[in-house]
Amino acid sequence: MAGPVQSIERAAAILRLLAQGSGRLGLGEVAASLGLAKGTTHGILRTLQSVDFVEQDRATGKYQLGAALLHLGTSYLDINELRSRSLNWADALAARSGEAVRIGVPLEGKVLIVHHVFRPDDTFQTLDVGSLLPLHASALGKVLLAFGATPVEPVLEAEPETYTRHTLASPQALNQALGEIREAGWASAVQETVMGEADIAAPIRGQGGLVVGAVGVSGTVERICDGKGRPQTSLVGLTRDAARAISRDLGAARW
Amino acid sequence: MAGPVQSIERAAAILRLLAQGSGRLGLGEVAASLGLAKGTTHGILRTLQSVDFVEQDRATGKYQLGAALLHLGTSYLDINELRSRSLNWADALAARSGEAVRIGVPLEGKVLIVHHVFRPDDTFQTLDVGSLLPLHASALGKVLLAFGATPVEPVLEAEPETYTRHTLASPQALNQALGEIREAGWASAVQETVMGEADIAAPIRGQGGLVVGAVGVSGTVERICDGKGRPQTSLVGLTRDAARAISRDLGAARW
Repeated sequence: MAGPVQSIERAAAILRLLAQGSGRLGLGEVAASLGLAKGTTHGILRTLQSVDFVEQDRATGKYQLGAALLHLGTSYLDINELRSRSLNWADALAARSGEAVRIGVPLEGKVLIVHHVFRPDDTFQTLDVGSLLPLHASALGKVLLAFGATPVEPVLEAEPETYTRHTLASPQALNQALGEIREAGWASAVQETVMGEADIAAPIRGQGGLVVGAVGVSGTVERICDGKGRPQTSLVGLTRDAARAISRDLGAARW
Repeated sequence: MAGPVQSIERAAAILRLLAQGSGRLGLGEVAASLGLAKGTTHGILRTLQSVDFVEQDRATGKYQLGAALLHLGTSYLDINELRSRSLNWADALAARSGEAVRIGVPLEGKVLIVHHVFRPDDTFQTLDVGSLLPLHASALGKVLLAFGATPVEPVLEAEPETYTRHTLASPQALNQALGEIREAGWASAVQETVMGEADIAAPIRGQGGLVVGAVGVSGTVERICDGKGRPQTSLVGLTRDAARAISRDLGAARW
């Protein structure tokens, strides 16, 4: 069986690097970040440029991500079965709950948002599709961790980052929370990523019952939680109902 | 100077292939489509899978695009200077015209939509960001062709595809139209891609005056055109004003 193709791994590492920070890097910066020779890096960058995965700014000579990736990214969404089977249920959950709805899948130790329905009012909201949330500090992420959609060990070993004073940043606290989530069948995160924001999430199961994603509602603490700062029971119920409906559509057995 | 890296070119070709049609292909289908040996193809697919650019369906063994591409695609949008400088002007154009606004750049012989502001009413609309329009049958595309943002020759040589009876499908008709667009400074396409739909577009210039994209309004013929089926003069004016404003923000000289 053939081993991995090194130049493709390196190309992917360059693209990931260009997706961070300012997103504009010179040849020397790319080479140094990845520990590669400038000649090797230049060959990869030129090839990535020839297939429109990378663009080079005429004025500065710096490299940035290219337009072909946008088309591939939206094509991923068009093909994604989890997303297509979730669309109607996510709309229904937003309508019934009056809150924003997001669907997440695991990607590289984070939660990737693959669908986002705005809260059904006229307020200004920005689309979260394509963004990454921390696994241990969001309800969506804790569901993915608790139900085995993505491994827990790397998160525990990397010392979970502290975003607010409510973030579960110790391995013990996170482990205990994941046990409780498995027991309860749903998760919440109240001010664990950003102060003032909360979310509630439940697992989406695919064929065979494996958890493949999570669906949740999110918003300000005042909207998501009751007077005692606990997730509103009605929102938990609606979220779990939506998760079950999507799972059924994906071919999971009833449970 | 190093030549292109063949395995990266092949990986890009596989990703482009998976972005077409049903988006799910078996190893044999991928290998046959690209004229590669199965072993070579398998090595590339496994590597693409290891970096989350490709996913393999457990049940069918077929390959499809992976989640990492969605994150890279939205990172491209976050970094894209044309898009970020256009956001406010596009919102203003939608508000003043009452129509949907789209911004396009050339990609692989098509127009890639990098920004889309919905028509400011409550009707059902779907986001076009990431989709590809034909160059010769849309106002956005004809602007890109007329002002040299993308080469005309490949379009003329490939016999432009006929979408409706209004599509400029002969090289002569298209060439003449592009001359008129250069003269007028804007383009329209009335029922040239889809019957009942029309758009108007004007060029966006970057530093040095080169055309780097196009901005336009689109909608039903009844909304975009006057009683005689011609683009409404007021919409043409608003579109050209927006294009000039974005160009100025991108560093183009006044013109």
